[in-house]
Amino acid sequence: MSAVNVVDWDAARLASWSDPHLARVEAALSRWVGVDAPVLLGDAMRYAVLDGGKRLRPLLVLAASEAVGGNAAAALRAACATELIHAYSLVHDDLPSMDNDVLRRGKPTVHVKFGEADALLAGDALQALAFELLTPDGDEIPASIQAMLCRLLARAAGSQGMAGGQAIDLASVGLALNEAQLREMHRLKTGALLQGSVEMGAACAGAVASGALAALRDYGAAIGLAFQVVDDILDVTADSQTLGKTAGKDAAADKPTYVSLWGLDGARAQARQLLAESLAALDRSGLADTAALRALAHMVVDRDR
Amino acid sequence: MSAVNVVDWDAARLASWSDPHLARVEAALSRWVGVDAPVLLGDAMRYAVLDGGKRLRPLLVLAASEAVGGNAAAALRAACATELIHAYSLVHDDLPSMDNDVLRRGKPTVHVKFGEADALLAGDALQALAFELLTPDGDEIPASIQAMLCRLLARAAGSQGMAGGQAIDLASVGLALNEAQLREMHRLKTGALLQGSVEMGAACAGAVASGALAALRDYGAAIGLAFQVVDDILDVTADSQTLGKTAGKDAAADKPTYVSLWGLDGARAQARQLLAESLAALDRSGLADTAALRALAHMVVDRDR
Repeated sequence: MSAVNVVDWDAARLASWSDPHLARVEAALSRWVGVDAPVLLGDAMRYAVLDGGKRLRPLLVLAASEAVGGNAAAALRAACATELIHAYSLVHDDLPSMDNDVLRRGKPTVHVKFGEADALLAGDALQALAFELLTPDGDEIPASIQAMLCRLLARAAGSQGMAGGQAIDLASVGLALNEAQLREMHRLKTGALLQGSVEMGAACAGAVASGALAALRDYGAAIGLAFQVVDDILDVTADSQTLGKTAGKDAAADKPTYVSLWGLDGARAQARQLLAESLAALDRSGLADTAALRALAHMVVDRDR
Repeated sequence: MSAVNVVDWDAARLASWSDPHLARVEAALSRWVGVDAPVLLGDAMRYAVLDGGKRLRPLLVLAASEAVGGNAAAALRAACATELIHAYSLVHDDLPSMDNDVLRRGKPTVHVKFGEADALLAGDALQALAFELLTPDGDEIPASIQAMLCRLLARAAGSQGMAGGQAIDLASVGLALNEAQLREMHRLKTGALLQGSVEMGAACAGAVASGALAALRDYGAAIGLAFQVVDDILDVTADSQTLGKTAGKDAAADKPTYVSLWGLDGARAQARQLLAESLAALDRSGLADTAALRALAHMVVDRDR
């Protein structure tokens, strides 16, 4: 384990990089989501996506793409596509037949606002839109990159990715999962799309040295797991207002978490360990400029919501 | 309007074409759907897809691809992808918050068998799998075809296609839609994916003469609408056992249909008119072998379930 260098973490420097990128992502999402859709459906799609969320997945796409010198148009579309998949998963996850949650990002959930049927359809339409964004007409984005982005996103979202992890989660309530089982569930449920975001960013360059690609994958896997460990910590330590969603619900639902497995201090130590692993992966990537990726790794671990 | 040539319709000849194609589609679906997924999710996905349905969309893909000399590997994957989108839409459409239907293809619906949460996730995972099937590793299918197939499928499935049509349908219960509104709803809800299937088949050739492509689009639009008109007729005239789903449910739900708009005889006359339009489109396509597409158009209009 390499020591964590606290100098890496410079919130002001991250903001100077991320603020203009976030502005571009927000503008693109507003331009692309729910426009020309039937009115109620479009409203529900926009409500689910716009003006909320940390946009961590888009930032990972953009940072990885910049690290490898990727096609900027492809990266912006890939960034938005990952956020649409994330947003649709939240809409469906909040439904009464799933987590039955009424609060998300400090606002009523989509089904509370628009009804269950439109929430279901909005989620479905957001998933389709993600793939539509990745495959624009014209030749600004080479077809080889379009196809690779669709491949990575479909794998990250499907039964061997996010949806598979949600199914394992569903089947695990009240069960005493061991560490390997818990890790596998989260590797799919949360990790696959976070790691996929990094890989999609790298794919925007078309071709990347295999060593660099492997290192970026390791980085993505480490921060994917770290994200969930921190989520479990925050579920115990933060209040609902700070989180913008219902705190303590995992414990209330008797769901296994990293905190229930390792205790609070143990989970915190694991999060630091994973941060160190993610930074070590960047060190061995051979890529010249990984400052944004490093800063995002710190953000994942040090966030308070 | 050209006269309908009843000699076109040769059930035995269609079967000699479609039977081996259906066998390939079934084998491919069985090989690709729900394998390596978490166990309950994979079971629900396979239950939703395998051993059921007319496989009209796959047959349209395969027939269109053969008419233009398309890549056979691409066509098989595109055929399965359209069926996965169709299957996922049925799973979600049957949920209690939507149509609340308990019978589909003569069997209990997915949520009745596996619970609402797994039905929701199975539908989500099937949509992702559709795009995963379209983007395999390797160079058997050129990236330009993979990207085009994803583009067409995403548009057909999303808020300006199938999901959008379902949202309009949802908002229309109890309303007196006029013909234009009803047609627009069905153009999206059912027509977009049927027309998209034809376009995806054509896309398997990479490049197709624009006149032929326009004619195939017109063919797809005509049979897409004809399919829904016949569906509305069968909802009134067939029993649940023959249909394999609950008959008469549109009338019971006070949903607008072509039969409520035109009467039974009027709807039947429209179906014949649309059949003639679809065949006329094939005549002007300039394509040499459109026999399978012609036979499928007859099948759409003359089916009894």
